[in-house]
Amino acid sequence: MNTSAHQRPLIAIDWGTTSLRGARLGPAGQVLESRDFPRGILTVPTGQFEAVFHELFGNWMQDPDALCLISGMAGSRQGWQEAPYCPCPAGFAELGQHLLWLKPGRIALVPGLRCLGTDAQHTPDVMRGEEVQIFGALHLAGRDNATLVLPGTHSKWAQVQGGRVTDFQTFMTGEVFALMSQHSILGKTLDLTGAFDEAAFFQGLDQSQQPGSVLHHLFAVRTLGLFDRLSAAQLHSFLSGLLIGEELRTQTVNAGSGPVILIGSNTLTRRYSLALQHLGFACQSHGAEATWAGLFALASAC
Amino acid sequence: MNTSAHQRPLIAIDWGTTSLRGARLGPAGQVLESRDFPRGILTVPTGQFEAVFHELFGNWMQDPDALCLISGMAGSRQGWQEAPYCPCPAGFAELGQHLLWLKPGRIALVPGLRCLGTDAQHTPDVMRGEEVQIFGALHLAGRDNATLVLPGTHSKWAQVQGGRVTDFQTFMTGEVFALMSQHSILGKTLDLTGAFDEAAFFQGLDQSQQPGSVLHHLFAVRTLGLFDRLSAAQLHSFLSGLLIGEELRTQTVNAGSGPVILIGSNTLTRRYSLALQHLGFACQSHGAEATWAGLFALASAC
Repeated sequence: MNTSAHQRPLIAIDWGTTSLRGARLGPAGQVLESRDFPRGILTVPTGQFEAVFHELFGNWMQDPDALCLISGMAGSRQGWQEAPYCPCPAGFAELGQHLLWLKPGRIALVPGLRCLGTDAQHTPDVMRGEEVQIFGALHLAGRDNATLVLPGTHSKWAQVQGGRVTDFQTFMTGEVFALMSQHSILGKTLDLTGAFDEAAFFQGLDQSQQPGSVLHHLFAVRTLGLFDRLSAAQLHSFLSGLLIGEELRTQTVNAGSGPVILIGSNTLTRRYSLALQHLGFACQSHGAEATWAGLFALASAC
Repeated sequence: MNTSAHQRPLIAIDWGTTSLRGARLGPAGQVLESRDFPRGILTVPTGQFEAVFHELFGNWMQDPDALCLISGMAGSRQGWQEAPYCPCPAGFAELGQHLLWLKPGRIALVPGLRCLGTDAQHTPDVMRGEEVQIFGALHLAGRDNATLVLPGTHSKWAQVQGGRVTDFQTFMTGEVFALMSQHSILGKTLDLTGAFDEAAFFQGLDQSQQPGSVLHHLFAVRTLGLFDRLSAAQLHSFLSGLLIGEELRTQTVNAGSGPVILIGSNTLTRRYSLALQHLGFACQSHGAEATWAGLFALASAC
């Protein structure tokens, strides 16, 4: 990264669906100060984004040299303003060209990415916010080629070649896990407060690699409980392994491209890391620092 | 079927989780009278099953010759009394041997079936109530060998050879459809009141046959809406095709065993019938009459 290109103070903002995080970065990209608010875009009335931004980050913007980059759902149709998706393949240069300047030279929205699926129907896929984490993690890992995984409500798997995202896929793993454990008949069998059980997690993972559909494998959560093969606490970990395993089942990771890069919370990256290693894939993990590193690298490049 | 063996009046009861249906059958198995109540086992307090039964069907039982067979969740741990699952392979003879007599010679609970999965972990599977519909439909179709599908909240696929259920699998298709369309982010994109759209249904079905996981294909409901490729009403049918297609994707139907037998409501059997034919499988459908035919045939055999 060419840090010399970026001399201005950077205000880095990650404005998601349910949360809003901001950091003031120093000249080498270090976090000088950070703020966290439960003010995701769902809580902001239409037309109030600028006011909320100035209420929460206005004093940081008093520096006349400050540059602010905002990633995440703030750039969606339901956000501050719609920043059209940048088509893949896309790297820093393409993202920089597609920034949507709210105040020229001062505040910009980072666009999300879109790609056309490789299936016969070319079903599109999209991300907003994860692209910044991807570029941040690549920078932190010093890599230009990688498979990256961002586990979550809607997990993303991205392929990067020569520093550009060439293709990616979304998996509704986290949301399906929440719905099945909280709202389905399986919820009656599960103890959500149980500690993570590694053996049960691997049993779910192995089950998911068996032939047949996940719509069938899910019912095992019920029958394994019914026949007392697993306890209510273990079934929770079993379900987690089953769904993460289904996500991993269809992945082809190019062994030559180095370890898979995981980006996310410790809880999730630990589970995915266990699962990937169980299936024979090496991996490395990054946390929230990937967002700040990505926005800093983007500011330096644009 | 040996109707001569069964001379006594039969009271046939299907007591499920959310509904309770009963029919008084004539000597040839014809329905003389039927009753339907929203009194599934979830509405009956522990210890009150006999009282509820006599309140709703007591006058039918006044005939001293009447025989009553009850199938469904009334025989579960949460029901009237637990009738242990009958192990597969099982036909009429095995079911008859495993009847749980609540009043000897007068009232019996039909046990459900259990089987051991063919996966490496031999994960068990279970059904309660569907076994009676299966035998009823086989009798109505005059067949001893078939693949049968009972679509619903928890769809069942059963293999029958020589009149005995050898193996079956449960799929949580209906429950996942309800959760995704009502409680997930996809619900925001769907119009649940939209009429069934056959083209969108087939598009979902085709999508589900593409490589990759259903956890990824589900996200297409969001992106196809986002890019205005399908309307909110069409997306509902697309999701239906996607999930039914995922259920069908992993099935191997022995073409030599004759058309697949579908048992269920008209709405569901129509969709499964469209899907099966689209994928090249012949099928025939049966409705509620399968339950009465199954209990009548069981009464005749026991």
